[in-house]
This record gives sequence, structure tokens and C-alpha cells, in this order.
Amino acid sequence: MITETVRVEAFSDGVYAIAITLLILEIKVPIPSAAPLSIQLMRQWPSFVSFVIRFAFIGVMWINHHRMFTHIRRSDNGLLVLNLLLLFGVTAVPFPTAVLAAHLGQAGQRTATLLFDGTFILIAVFFNLLWRYASSPHRHLLAHDVDADAVARISRMYSFGPLPYLICFALAWVSVPASLVANAALAGFFALPPTVMRPKTLKRGSGFRTIRGTRSWGDLYETCSS
Amino acid sequence: MITETVRVEAFSDGVYAIAITLLILEIKVPIPSAAPLSIQLMRQWPSFVSFVIRFAFIGVMWINHHRMFTHIRRSDNGLLVLNLLLLFGVTAVPFPTAVLAAHLGQAGQRTATLLFDGTFILIAVFFNLLWRYASSPHRHLLAHDVDADAVARISRMYSFGPLPYLICFALAWVSVPASLVANAALAGFFALPPTVMRPKTLKRGSGFRTIRGTRSWGDLYETCSS
Amino acid sequence: MITETVRVEAFSDGVYAIAITLLILEIKVPIPSAAPLSIQLMRQWPSFVSFVIRFAFIGVMWINHHRMFTHIRRSDNGLLVLNLLLLFGVTAVPFPTAVLAAHLGQAGQRTATLLFDGTFILIAVFFNLLWRYASSPHRHLLAHDVDADAVARISRMYSFGPLPYLICFALAWVSVPASLVANAALAGFFALPPTVMRPKTLKRGSGFRTIRGTRSWGDLYETCSS
Amino acid sequence: MITETVRVEAFSDGVYAIAITLLILEIKVPIPSAAPLSIQLMRQWPSFVSFVIRFAFIGVMWINHHRMFTHIRRSDNGLLVLNLLLLFGVTAVPFPTAVLAAHLGQAGQRTATLLFDGTFILIAVFFNLLWRYASSPHRHLLAHDVDADAVARISRMYSFGPLPYLICFALAWVSVPASLVANAALAGFFALPPTVMRPKTLKRGSGFRTIRGTRSWGDLYETCSS
Repeated sequence: MITETVRVEAFSDGVYAIAITLLILEIKVPIPSAAPLSIQLMRQWPSFVSFVIRFAFIGVMWINHHRMFTHIRRSDNGLLVLNLLLLFGVTAVPFPTAVLAAHLGQAGQRTATLLFDGTFILIAVFFNLLWRYASSPHRHLLAHDVDADAVARISRMYSFGPLPYLICFALAWVSVPASLVANAALAGFFALPPTVMRPKTLKRGSGFRTIRGTRSWGDLYETCSS
Repeated sequence: MITETVRVEAFSDGVYAIAITLLILEIKVPIPSAAPLSIQLMRQWPSFVSFVIRFAFIGVMWINHHRMFTHIRRSDNGLLVLNLLLLFGVTAVPFPTAVLAAHLGQAGQRTATLLFDGTFILIAVFFNLLWRYASSPHRHLLAHDVDADAVARISRMYSFGPLPYLICFALAWVSVPASLVANAALAGFFALPPTVMRPKTLKRGSGFRTIRGTRSWGDLYETCSS
Repeated sequence: MITETVRVEAFSDGVYAIAITLLILEIKVPIPSAAPLSIQLMRQWPSFVSFVIRFAFIGVMWINHHRMFTHIRRSDNGLLVLNLLLLFGVTAVPFPTAVLAAHLGQAGQRTATLLFDGTFILIAVFFNLLWRYASSPHRHLLAHDVDADAVARISRMYSFGPLPYLICFALAWVSVPASLVANAALAGFFALPPTVMRPKTLKRGSGFRTIRGTRSWGDLYETCSS
Repeated sequence: MITETVRVEAFSDGVYAIAITLLILEIKVPIPSAAPLSIQLMRQWPSFVSFVIRFAFIGVMWINHHRMFTHIRRSDNGLLVLNLLLLFGVTAVPFPTAVLAAHLGQAGQRTATLLFDGTFILIAVFFNLLWRYASSPHRHLLAHDVDADAVARISRMYSFGPLPYLICFALAWVSVPASLVANAALAGFFALPPTVMRPKTLKRGSGFRTIRGTRSWGDLYETCSS
């Protein structure tokens, strides 16, 4: 059964939105006490850092999911299952991040970093599986007029994914801070666009043609206007 | 009042997304203590297993809801109420799963398994009611060009639903592990597509015609192009 | 600034979906103890009743919101603000219901019932304000081809709303159970369709014309086909 | 990569919906005790005030986000990142509001007010960045037929944003109540429409043309009808 991707995206958006919004609930509100509020707030800095990190990581993953589904127009049962696998990784992120925030600078910081890095290896593998499946030419799940170069560039970007996360994981045995800095750098890398700009089309074509509109509207447009 | 199904699906997606994302909040973050973090994490295995199981079950139910609404194009008051009944079952799932995770290997494991299996009997009945109502020919809620064979196959799949869950329930009186294994096997079965592939249409038709597009777009397409 | 209603509905669906899904989190999972699990579960009956009631009430409110926005095609600033007021009432529901569940059969049951009934008076007023504003003829927020009779019937149904909830409120001073039964009966009444079926149109028109499609698609259809 | 904005809006709606709905969970349900329920509820007034304030603030921010995206039709990587920054501010709001509710009338009330005002300075800056980026003429992210006057008026409204919130912040050093009243007045100001009504078009044009429809529908309409 081949269907469009509206609901896959809506469901995924919901999962990302909840995972990113729930984070604030874990920051304890300081209660009036002997210590001044400003001191109490400052002591909470690990919670704030953890909040910012998790927000950034889940945000970057959402951008990548959005980027992928700009090209994917059709879904089948395999895509639904692989997308659920990826969302499984996304919903899990709050746990390793909270463990990391609680154990940084403590005896368990290496274990916490390995758990954190391990989660991102898994997510990188899931992103890879989803994109490979969707972009496989005989499945016809991508847009008809998709730019083959753009697809190749995204494929390269994602196939490159799991390896650096494995290096982060290995690095944690040598130095916990180095591993975490490398992990943050990777998130920054994946926030960047994979230079899929297709500038020529943008300059030449009309405004509407060059937009990768919602799934079948482009097709509909072509139908109506031809 | 007969309407399209966009909002029914959006609301349902929201409910599924929240039910599947909230699960992680119930896993306690281990605090730095005398026991090493790795030991503490290993002791939490029932929480992790429960997280994976619930994610998989709610994910499979979402796939089935999505599959059903691929064919349903119109909604009326009865459909709204029956869909709410089904969502009632979905939002309830976290409770019996948490009870099961807490009591497995304890004195209450049989009661917990019966509660867990009972919830899925109820959900199978609700899925059945919803599909029977929607696919009833005189209600005209399915797509105009729906494949009668596909509808019959889905009907068979869902009408078959409650019985095996009843068997799981009965099995719990004999053997708790057997009942749980059977339940997991059923989830796997419902994750599979009901072979509604319609390969002939896919090979013959143009790319667009064979996609089961969002509700009324197909109709719109036919209107515009004819 | 007059806009379409897609995002108003999407945002409202999100709020309803979260309000209805969060309820399960408040049911405590019994921990293994001296008392058998079955006994512990039975003692939790007020939590289960409260869960069912809240689910039903929020579900019925969602159906009514959906019914209203089937006719509303355009939104302006006033509609956004009035819709937020209504959602304010919806998000508040979990609190009075939890208070009622905790105090039923206790000294505070009258106060809890008044709080519960009061919330629904407020929500009935908000539903009224929203519909009066949207259906006011000079604002042009309804669909162009809306059935004037259907609008009149919905107006009558909603203007009738606040009064019976006021009666429930007054009844609580006489008898708490009578007030709660009357309140539940009202929820049942609002779950019913306001007989806006327009059977003639349904029989005469083509399949597509009679469906109240998503906002501007109907208009678009008329544009494309004329 | 330039795409439409459907998913950006859906994801944002989800984040707003969750941030606004979670608030009720923080109000503790009074348990039956020696004190009458009515007295217990009255003592909870700071929680209720905090709930109303947060709901209103997040609601106003949603209205502004909706207003902005009525004009934005296309998104690129920069817009995704700036929108995430803004949502970061939105998801953070529950924390400073809860801190304010807990410390009002206590020793820490100035610190709490500064934290609260500081959050809204940040959000005003993020709103500004997002709108400046989107409305920059060479990026072509706005609708083709956007009213240049309306854009200018919104630009003025938002560029004016951070300054008054800075004044609120400064005012907190002089008088905490004055700062909070000024902040609430600002929320009221931003709930008002920026007089982008374009009354001439509304009177002259047909019903459909003047509606700022979902992104590409207007374009599609022009394509189909010309």
C-alpha cells in the first residue's frame, strides 16, 4: 500500500514537538529559602546547559527529518516502520541527556558519555536506513522531478553519519570533554544545509516551480496548468 | 453532517504522538551514589524493556490507524465517536504496561498480564467497530475508487483481531510468559501490510493515479483533469 | 487581517490531543506490596472513573469544536482570541475533574461539584461567544455556501448551552449526585449531531459537492471546474 | 534548499500547544484534610494567577507567530534555525513564570521579575530576527502578492519590541509591581492586530482573492483561473 506522506510528517512533527517541549518540566523551580534566589538559580546551571543541549540536538534532528521529507513524496509500510525506528531514537534522547547532566563531573561521567554517544550512533544509523530505503530508485518514493545530484549529496552526508559518532564513542574512553565537544560539533554540522540549493533553477524558473511544494501539489499544479 | 477526515487524522496523530513520547518520562534518571552508574543502569532493564514494548505497540496501532484512514475519505458523527473510543484505548495503554513492568516476576504478574491482555482485547474490538462502521457500503465514507478486494482483506484482518487477543487472555491463566510472547507476536502480525498492494494498478497507471492521495485531492485531480 | 483556519484548527487539535492524553499519567501505578494487585486496582476505581469522565468530556468538546469549524472558513484577530479563550477552558478541565475525583464522598464534595459545574458554565459561554462571533453575517467568516438553516440550528443549540449548566450548578446545592448526573447527560446531548444533515443536498448533489471539504478546497473546486 | 512552510507551522503549533497545555499539571490538587476545600482552593490563588498569565502570554505569542507566517510562504535553512530559536524562548517560558509565582511577595521577587522580563527581551529579539530574515526582500520568502505597507507596519511593530521589554527589565530595579504591570500591558498590545487590514482590497475584491490562503493555494488559484 503506497500512500502520501502527510500523516507520517504530522505524526513525526508531533513526536518532535513533544520531545522538545517536555524538557523544561525537568528543571526544578527553586523554593523560597535561606539562600538568595540568584544563588539558587546559578547552582542550577547544569540543568540549564542540559536544556539548551537537548533542545539543540532535537531541533537539529527535526531539521534533518524535514529536509529528508522534502524529497520523499510517497510512503509504504517499510517507510512507516523505519520512520518509527527513527522516532524511537528521538523520544529516547531525553534520558541519556538527563543521565549525562546528572553525572558530569561525577564518577559515572564516562559511562554517561558512552550512553549519550551510543544513542546518537543509533540515531545516525536509523537516519541512514530511512534515507537509503526511501531513496532506493526502484521504490519510487521520492518526488518525480527530484534532483539526482541533491539526492546523491544527501546520501553522502547521511552515510557519513554513523562513523563520526563512533569516533565520539571511542573518544570517550580517552577524554570525556573531547568526546562531548566533538558530538556538539557534529550537531552543528548536521544543522547546515547539504548545499542542495540548485541555484540555477532558482534564478531561471518562476517562483512557484522551484519551490518543493507539499507532496502532490506540484503534480497537481502541472496537471491543472498543462 | 458529513465532513472530510483531515482533522480527525490530525487529532488522532496528536494523541498517538503524545502517548508514544511521554513514555520516556517514566524512566527514572539514576542519581550519583555508591553504586557505579553502569550497575544502576543495568538494574533498570525492566523500565527499558517496558519502554520498547509500549513504543512498539503504540507505533503498530498508529500504522493501523493510518492504514485505515488511507481508505476513509469522509467522516460523520458516528465515526468521530468510534474514533474517540479507539483513542481512549490508545491513551490507556501506558497504564497496563507500567503495571506489567512493575509486577513481572512478582506475585501480581498474572493479574498484571490479564489487565494488559484485556486492554488489547478492547482495542481490537474498537478497531473492528470503527472499520465496520466506516466500510459499511451505505455510509459512503470510503473513497469512491476504493478497491473492494482491499476493503474485504482489511475487514477480514480486523474481524480476526479480537479472537487471538482473547486467546492471549485465556493463556495467561496457564502461562504468563506464553501469553506475553503471543501478544508480542500479534503486534508483529498487525505491523505487516494486509497485502493491499494492488500491483496491477501500480504497474499500469501513471505515478499519480496509483497513489492513495490525501482524501479529496484524488477527486479534485479527476475534476481538474477531466 | 483575515486568514484561513488551517492553523487555528491544527493548534486547537494539539491542545485537545494533549489535554486528553495527559490524563492517564495521573493514575498511580500500584507497587508490589502485601495487598494483592487485584485488590489494589479495585481500590483505584475513583481514578478510573475520573479518567473515563474527563476523556468523554474533552472528547465531546473536540467534536463540537470540529463541528463548528466545519462551517467556519476564515479567521480574524477576534476569532483567534475567542478560540484561545475556549482552549483556556479546555486546558483547565483536568484540574476541577481531579479535585472532584479526590473529594467525592468527602466533606468537600459540594465545593468540588460547584467548581466542576462552574468550569462547564464558563466553557459553554466561550463556545457561545466563539460561534456568535464567527456566524455574525457581516463578518463573512463562514463558508460562502453555508446552509442558513444549519447555522440557525447550531446557534440555537449553543445559545441553549450556558443555561442548563447553570441549572447543574444550582442543583449542586440541593443534591451533588443529581448535579453530576445532569452534567453527564448534557455531555451526551452535545455529542449528538445538531441534525444539520441536509439530506436533500446529499441525495441530489454529486459525491464531492456535498462534502464540506477543507476550507478553501470547495472554492478552489468551483474555480477549477467553472 | 527552499521549501514551503507547512511543516514549520505544524511543528511550531505542536510546540505552542504543548507549552500552553502542560501548565495545568503544575497546579496541585488539594487532598481531603482538616481545612475545608474552599479555603484550600483560595490559598492556591498564586497558582491560578500564574496559570492565567502563562496561558495569555503563550497564546499571544502563538497569535504573533500565526500572523507572521500568514505572510511567509517559503522557508530555507536560516528560517528553520531562527524559528527554532524562537520556539526555544517559547518552551522556556514556563520556568521563569513558575519561579515568579513561587517568589512573588518573597525576598527573591526582584530576581524572579528580572528573570521573567529577561526571557521576554530574548523572545522579542528572536521574533525580530525571524521577521527581519523572512521579510528581507532578496530572500523571496514572503508571498509574491504581499502588501508592502503591511510588511512595513509589522516590521515597525516588531523592531519596537525589544525596547519596551528592556524598559520593563530596568523598571524591576525601581518597582517590581510596575514592571509586571508594564509587561502585561505589552502582551495586550501584541495581541492587537497591526492594522494590516487592507480594507480597500477587502471591499473591492471577490471573497476568495482577499483571503491570505495557505501558502501556495493562492498561487495555485491564480494558475488555474488565468
